[in-house]
Amino acid sequence: MASAEFRPLDEKSLIEYIKATPSLSSKIGNKFDDLTIKEVGDGNLNFVYIVIGSSGSFVIKQAIPYVRSVGESLPMTKERAYFETLALTEHGQLCPDHVPEVYHFDPKMYLIGMRYLEPPHIILRKGLIAGVEYPLLAEHMSEYMARTLFRTSLLYRTTSEHKRAVAEFCGNVELCRLTERVVFSDPYKVSELNRWTSPYLDHDAEAVREDNILKLEVAELKSKFCERAQALIHGDLHTGSVMVTPNSTQMDTLMKGMTGNGDAALDWASFLAYKEWILRTIEETWTLFQKKFTALWHQHKDGPGEAYLPEIYNKPELQQLIQEKYVKDLFHDSLGFGAAKMIRRIVGVAHVEDFESIKDASKRAACERQALELAKTLLKERRKFQAISGVISAIRKLQS
Amino acid sequence: MASAEFRPLDEKSLIEYIKATPSLSSKIGNKFDDLTIKEVGDGNLNFVYIVIGSSGSFVIKQAIPYVRSVGESLPMTKERAYFETLALTEHGQLCPDHVPEVYHFDPKMYLIGMRYLEPPHIILRKGLIAGVEYPLLAEHMSEYMARTLFRTSLLYRTTSEHKRAVAEFCGNVELCRLTERVVFSDPYKVSELNRWTSPYLDHDAEAVREDNILKLEVAELKSKFCERAQALIHGDLHTGSVMVTPNSTQMDTLMKGMTGNGDAALDWASFLAYKEWILRTIEETWTLFQKKFTALWHQHKDGPGEAYLPEIYNKPELQQLIQEKYVKDLFHDSLGFGAAKMIRRIVGVAHVEDFESIKDASKRAACERQALELAKTLLKERRKFQAISGVISAIRKLQS
Repeated sequence: MASAEFRPLDEKSLIEYIKATPSLSSKIGNKFDDLTIKEVGDGNLNFVYIVIGSSGSFVIKQAIPYVRSVGESLPMTKERAYFETLALTEHGQLCPDHVPEVYHFDPKMYLIGMRYLEPPHIILRKGLIAGVEYPLLAEHMSEYMARTLFRTSLLYRTTSEHKRAVAEFCGNVELCRLTERVVFSDPYKVSELNRWTSPYLDHDAEAVREDNILKLEVAELKSKFCERAQALIHGDLHTGSVMVTPNSTQMDTLMKGMTGNGDAALDWASFLAYKEWILRTIEETWTLFQKKFTALWHQHKDGPGEAYLPEIYNKPELQQLIQEKYVKDLFHDSLGFGAAKMIRRIVGVAHVEDFESIKDASKRAACERQALELAKTLLKERRKFQAISGVISAIRKLQS
Repeated sequence: MASAEFRPLDEKSLIEYIKATPSLSSKIGNKFDDLTIKEVGDGNLNFVYIVIGSSGSFVIKQAIPYVRSVGESLPMTKERAYFETLALTEHGQLCPDHVPEVYHFDPKMYLIGMRYLEPPHIILRKGLIAGVEYPLLAEHMSEYMARTLFRTSLLYRTTSEHKRAVAEFCGNVELCRLTERVVFSDPYKVSELNRWTSPYLDHDAEAVREDNILKLEVAELKSKFCERAQALIHGDLHTGSVMVTPNSTQMDTLMKGMTGNGDAALDWASFLAYKEWILRTIEETWTLFQKKFTALWHQHKDGPGEAYLPEIYNKPELQQLIQEKYVKDLFHDSLGFGAAKMIRRIVGVAHVEDFESIKDASKRAACERQALELAKTLLKERRKFQAISGVISAIRKLQS
């Protein structure tokens, strides 16, 4: 069904929409009598409907022209649905095991129909808060990131393909601008959107706004975010964007955040900005990622990628040098972006359930202050860290 | 006159073309009897016709689908004429004193009609080889670079404007690919296009191909060239691209090289890759550029630019920190790109008259070897230089 113009759907109009859309109605065997529809959007940028029938299911995501959690104060274009579908489709081709399939896209309605991640899939963040351990998480996350980041970078792409992809995603400007604002700007200035655990962290929030070195470092990251197109990144890969069971890990994040050609470290960053008790998983994920990424590089070193031409770089000792440098730069960028994301979750507009679920404000403030201090150290001194183990040690020391 | 399709013009068909194009024929008062036409293209990528009548003049540049100096072996799209007109027009608005005016553009014919830089304008390279000194050169070059690089960067542009401009110039991919090849790849590998003063520099050329650290560093610059969009750069700003008289300095480079959104240091680099006896001018140009650029920054610190928001960065000591860092990064990138350009001019496809005019091959090789060693040092150790004076000293020491 090609809609004439955008209109936000409710549960009733959604059924009419599905009936008129074969790629969706066929997924539920064209049976509408036993249909259940539930709105579950917990993100800020769209409505999410789960549609379940007796012979099939899917999920419908519709972008809306403002950010839900802050009402109309952060207007958004609906075009993000287009870019997120593009990215979802490309990432799905590169890593089908961990990216849900897209069934339908309606550019006029800014609407995606895609696989419903059935129970027992839950949001990773909620599982982690409940204390569940996911033994395959590191394996799956590292697989997803290694595949998508390698294959959409100049290590695999020709510069012509790369420029075409960059031009395509330049249109996703509004969502990038939102990230610029809430991650790289607002936490470092007085903004009506900022909030923190007051009055406990009043001085801490002020200290962030007064810290010249911190602001110098975050400006460097912002410049990378705005000027650099390294790979087609997910762009919002935090634990609230991943759906898991003990055996399955699915990137459900698209439609909730920005996506485009950016610094590959940004995908890493969102995942790093997390709590003490998954430290081992973080360490394992990074270590596995490094292995998988360099294995892909080795496998495709005579492939189409134009960053390191085989005639120049195919000597074992030089291969090692360039791979070490590439991964080290990615590591330091990841620490920087991760730190910026931690800071914004504590003194910026959108917070995380991990802290918000601590009801006692003074206890919450104490945890947040610890995380904030760690983040400031990481942002200012990220280049001093040689390996992920050093970061993990620093976190453990802080929390002991 | 809108042509139906591309055809390369010769002197005869050019006159017919001018007659049918009011924006051109009006420049010569619609008089065709006393017209003189001269083809003077010394670049690689286009034909250049000077058209002079009794009541006016202009120059016609037509892009052709291959690189002239190497025949058909480096095929080029004709689209570069479109991008160069875009860039020329934008740079002309930002710095009309040093960018020639565009009178006419024909996208189908890949043809630009623009101001003829009348005698005594000569190509700066030729003036320098002849030993002429240009007392206003540093002032003019620094003015042009400060204005264009500042105004097209995120220091002045919003991120929306910036993304739009980046998307636009992504189409200029073929010319970028040529630069990638001849600057960042060919000199570091065996290529049929490479040449050097043989047999004197055989070992030197081989040493470049075997130098792991050099290759590691040039890969970092290539990544910046391919992935980063810092400002709308000229992209080919060497001394062969500047027309001068003692009182006038005009950027005549467009249509001869690549242009697009790239690393601002690249414009600096082409100009730096030059010889001992204009060292004072180089030093003065950099010093003036730094002053002018930071003065523009100060003047527009409450302007539309989104890299450093006033609410976060408008404190005098922080302003100083960020400006020092920005200019220092630009300086180090410039040294790197400049060194890469020196290397390619000695062991790559296209050489420079500065060296080529030395007829004695052993003498020429001695000069080239000196420049090559300097370039290797600059590329590997650029981050150790604190100021332009240190670079100038290193060159003087080398040549004494």
